Amino acid sequence: MVASMSGPAKIRLYVDHPLREGQSVPLTRDQANYLFAVMRLGPGAELALINGRDGEWRARVAEAGKRGGLLACLEQMRPLTMPPDLWLLFAPVRKARTDFIVEKAAEMGARRILPVQTDFSQADRIRQDRLQAHAIEAAEQCGNTFVPEVAPLQPLAALLDGWDAGRSLMWCDESLADGADGGVQEPPVACGAVLIGPAGGFSAAERARLRGLPWSRPTRLGPRILRADTAAVAALTLWQLRHGDWQ
Amino acid sequence: MVASMSGPAKIRLYVDHPLREGQSVPLTRDQANYLFAVMRLGPGAELALINGRDGEWRARVAEAGKRGGLLACLEQMRPLTMPPDLWLLFAPVRKARTDFIVEKAAEMGARRILPVQTDFSQADRIRQDRLQAHAIEAAEQCGNTFVPEVAPLQPLAALLDGWDAGRSLMWCDESLADGADGGVQEPPVACGAVLIGPAGGFSAAERARLRGLPWSRPTRLGPRILRADTAAVAALTLWQLRHGDWQ
Repeated sequence: MVASMSGPAKIRLYVDHPLREGQSVPLTRDQANYLFAVMRLGPGAELALINGRDGEWRARVAEAGKRGGLLACLEQMRPLTMPPDLWLLFAPVRKARTDFIVEKAAEMGARRILPVQTDFSQADRIRQDRLQAHAIEAAEQCGNTFVPEVAPLQPLAALLDGWDAGRSLMWCDESLADGADGGVQEPPVACGAVLIGPAGGFSAAERARLRGLPWSRPTRLGPRILRADTAAVAALTLWQLRHGDWQ
Repeated sequence: MVASMSGPAKIRLYVDHPLREGQSVPLTRDQANYLFAVMRLGPGAELALINGRDGEWRARVAEAGKRGGLLACLEQMRPLTMPPDLWLLFAPVRKARTDFIVEKAAEMGARRILPVQTDFSQADRIRQDRLQAHAIEAAEQCGNTFVPEVAPLQPLAALLDGWDAGRSLMWCDESLADGADGGVQEPPVACGAVLIGPAGGFSAAERARLRGLPWSRPTRLGPRILRADTAAVAALTLWQLRHGDWQ
């Protein structure tokens, strides 16, 4: 299901640089190493560039060095396509699964990814730069032209304090009884968020607060208990089907 | 989102042995090592047992040794709960992601997991025993009382040759145009299957054959390209919502 449908795999590279016709794009040492040492590109070779803002561009290697290089931006192949205005809030779990949640959120079209500390959180810090790199890699691999932003870790309570009431929040509550999921009958929402709890679920105090918020909706992800990374993909699927661009 | 909602994590162990009141359950060397060396259980300690057939049982350590041991089966805590009659067919990808697909399929309630060879498959063999162990571990972790069977790798074409026409097949086709997904209007199906292709998608010949089968339905998983493991969770979510026990 990955981008390369046929022919040799096309290299798609994220650069933090404006992309426009005739633009020169300098490479970092890591990027030069990847393109010239790992992927063996030489001067004149073509690749695709994204920066999360200007769509996808065809580019050519102008200079290739050991510690850097220069790409020439040729023409826009695809415009920027933004996903629906959906955020994913999740409580970080152990490292590999946290990486997966970020990767999956990027693939599933979350615009922002917000790690949150909850009462039963298993992790009290994250490597934001590392998670952002996973989101970028997912965008490169899956052909997306946008890259979700990974926010710093913040307490769920503080995030809810400053919440914009216009953004609906679907929170996944495994203690919800069968049939108590009111989400299906909801009207379409223009912007929303999905909240996945940690392995231990939400505390009674968190549940009580979430239930009392007028813009929040508890949702049950079927009758089986899911790991946090599975729950993230399932909940994002549910949201995209109900409110997003899977309709 | 994992089983232990509060208190110390309960040990859930899968055993390939009948479970009934008063039953003695012998342990393999690996199981004894896990319970007595890793988890430090001693005689009298309690744990939960599943075997995929008899529900979940409370059991007690009767004998603990370095190379084996004996558990005494006390009482059934939960009956066997089978998920809907859903199969997952998927083309194996690279190792870690294949492991994930099997784990996720077990969590999402697939009854059978069938690795299939397709024209663009990236793997021509699988470790069936290893994948079955992942399915068992997912059942242990997530509180399920059933364990899906992982079938041997087989050619997709052969599987389709012998297909029971009463089982609908939802296949995920990323080349499908927007709005061409006929699945939403489908009547409920009693038994079904979901088919996820390899990274390169299906070949033209496979597409033509799948389109011609009266019991198959192409489905599009949104407008973005998904990796195979993401696609598996999303497609299983879609099926469970439309036809399964998430309704």
